Amino acid sequence: MARITVLGAGVMGTALTFPLSDNGHEVRLVGTHLDDEIIRSCKEARLHPKLRRQIPDRVTPYAYSEAEQALPDAEVILLGVNSRGVHWAAEVLGRLARPGQIIMMVTKGLESVDGELKILPDVLYARLPAPLRDQLKYAAIGGPSIAGELAARHHTSVVFVSRDESILPYLQSLYATPYYHIWTSTDMLGVELCVALKNPVALAVGLAAGVLEKKTRAQGPDPVDTRMFNFAAGVFAQGLTEMAYIVQLLGGRPETIYSLPGAGDLFVTSMGGRNQRMGRLLGMGMPFSEAVEEMPGETIEGVDATIAIMPAIDAMTQAGKIDADALPMLRTLYRILTRNAPAEFEFDRFFASLPMFTPPPARSAE
Amino acid sequence: MARITVLGAGVMGTALTFPLSDNGHEVRLVGTHLDDEIIRSCKEARLHPKLRRQIPDRVTPYAYSEAEQALPDAEVILLGVNSRGVHWAAEVLGRLARPGQIIMMVTKGLESVDGELKILPDVLYARLPAPLRDQLKYAAIGGPSIAGELAARHHTSVVFVSRDESILPYLQSLYATPYYHIWTSTDMLGVELCVALKNPVALAVGLAAGVLEKKTRAQGPDPVDTRMFNFAAGVFAQGLTEMAYIVQLLGGRPETIYSLPGAGDLFVTSMGGRNQRMGRLLGMGMPFSEAVEEMPGETIEGVDATIAIMPAIDAMTQAGKIDADALPMLRTLYRILTRNAPAEFEFDRFFASLPMFTPPPARSAE
Repeated sequence: MARITVLGAGVMGTALTFPLSDNGHEVRLVGTHLDDEIIRSCKEARLHPKLRRQIPDRVTPYAYSEAEQALPDAEVILLGVNSRGVHWAAEVLGRLARPGQIIMMVTKGLESVDGELKILPDVLYARLPAPLRDQLKYAAIGGPSIAGELAARHHTSVVFVSRDESILPYLQSLYATPYYHIWTSTDMLGVELCVALKNPVALAVGLAAGVLEKKTRAQGPDPVDTRMFNFAAGVFAQGLTEMAYIVQLLGGRPETIYSLPGAGDLFVTSMGGRNQRMGRLLGMGMPFSEAVEEMPGETIEGVDATIAIMPAIDAMTQAGKIDADALPMLRTLYRILTRNAPAEFEFDRFFASLPMFTPPPARSAE
Repeated sequence: MARITVLGAGVMGTALTFPLSDNGHEVRLVGTHLDDEIIRSCKEARLHPKLRRQIPDRVTPYAYSEAEQALPDAEVILLGVNSRGVHWAAEVLGRLARPGQIIMMVTKGLESVDGELKILPDVLYARLPAPLRDQLKYAAIGGPSIAGELAARHHTSVVFVSRDESILPYLQSLYATPYYHIWTSTDMLGVELCVALKNPVALAVGLAAGVLEKKTRAQGPDPVDTRMFNFAAGVFAQGLTEMAYIVQLLGGRPETIYSLPGAGDLFVTSMGGRNQRMGRLLGMGMPFSEAVEEMPGETIEGVDATIAIMPAIDAMTQAGKIDADALPMLRTLYRILTRNAPAEFEFDRFFASLPMFTPPPARSAE
């Protein structure tokens, strides 16, 4: 039996308390300064209001003000904060983490730092005080995992990743259940890039639904009911190609992209959620500045990640490290989000980074 | 302007007459012996009853009995028959094709021949009479393309493939429009394997919906509405891995698997259609023998392909060419379809062919 403390009482951090509880561990769920309402509900009614489910018996909820009772003696601290909470989490861990602890991240995101793309475990590390930061161990979780489904104990397949191979079997043993299937990997860079990059791509896939509505509005209703899955699939394939380009450029491994952390997670993220809702609004032709007001107070990871990565992408392109025609979808998405560019892709520019493919005949000459 | 004859008046063959007509070509649509009703409707009302759409003005419909007026003088013959029609098509082409013609296939499927997997262009070739078969040129189309969406002129991105690189720019120029985006490739084996293998995988992805219904029936309704996208995504990722295993074993190229023909087409095929409907029935626990009666007269490509490939997979496994643990999903699917095995996957056996991943702890010891 181990003590695991989850910092951040969002849906994903809380869902991970289910396999931990089923395995008999002592689990603490610590809210951030924004989670007081959630923690009150968990204490009073054992109900997580966003997950809309009773928390497991073995879980003890703590308000942020009680964090010092929950963090210092845990074997594992699981960071369940979102990408905007990483700097805050570094401050909390700097005070309350203790040497030897394992810090696991489920946070999705990237940052541009001095013209380079940084994965969040490295952002966290850089912000932790020395010498503590070298006395902690780091791991992260990637792969397709909708929190509500994990909490329903539906089959869920993920990858636990750490540069420190020695801790992986231990972590796997803590969490593995008959419904929570865990593979391990040391490709931290590849997994964390996939975890973050799948969100912009899923947002782009989500444009298809809105583009269809816009086309229907412009041309009048089509008596034949169609979707725009061909559009979505073209973007899905190009998105995977752009993820692969970035991951391999930075030294991640192909298997990571084409299995659970990349293709699998991109699939699940394209099935619904906030990225899809934002994508639909943009696809309909709504400027981003208006679309964001339709979703007040919601963190849209695909938006945050696109805006976070572009300074580094631009710098690397300027420096000749990235081909100018390698990432047409991400660059278009950035222009849609920041310059109200029309929500249209130049499909014929896709797949330019795959030498095996001869592209469509140039249409610019027409 | 070219003359293109489509043999087989199904939805996909007919949908491809839209970009051809938009480009000003002379297009003939020839029904098979099973398509008389469709051709009558096309002649009398210009309406394709399955596509539920008017056929373009430039398309001339021909009954099978009129095929000799439509095939011999075409520059390109597009085979729109399904996998069960390839032997029949070889007989027709043997009579009516002429040296120099290009035969394009949109047919999806594979055959086991003498313990080896054969792609359909090679099956067709083997059944055509010499010397004609060496006087024809061969190409095929892969990638995510729902016929009804192409006919609605929604953006569609595909790969045209031929071992004869010289014909690809010509074919691309015939079909390319502002909504029909065509890349070309010479990886015939890779594209045709992906085209066929995505169907069993999409069927397996489709099990998730039925498994959810079965679980809900067994446990009572869950007050929290969830889907089983995590399940589906795990199967999607493993399916892509199994496709990659087979494609690379036989000499196809990785880019083919991870772009439009593999991942893209698998995505679109997982969004709906007959494979999904069959998957749901099986996932609910219905034996295949009953499920097939729920879908009378329908060709379910994922079923046909699974049954068609397994003799070759088994032979190659016996011969040591395929690892016994490399294709757990396809093997399970085969047992579900042929031996009424329960519709359950051993998730923990997935990804064994990826050396980077350490699998979950063995559960068999529990």
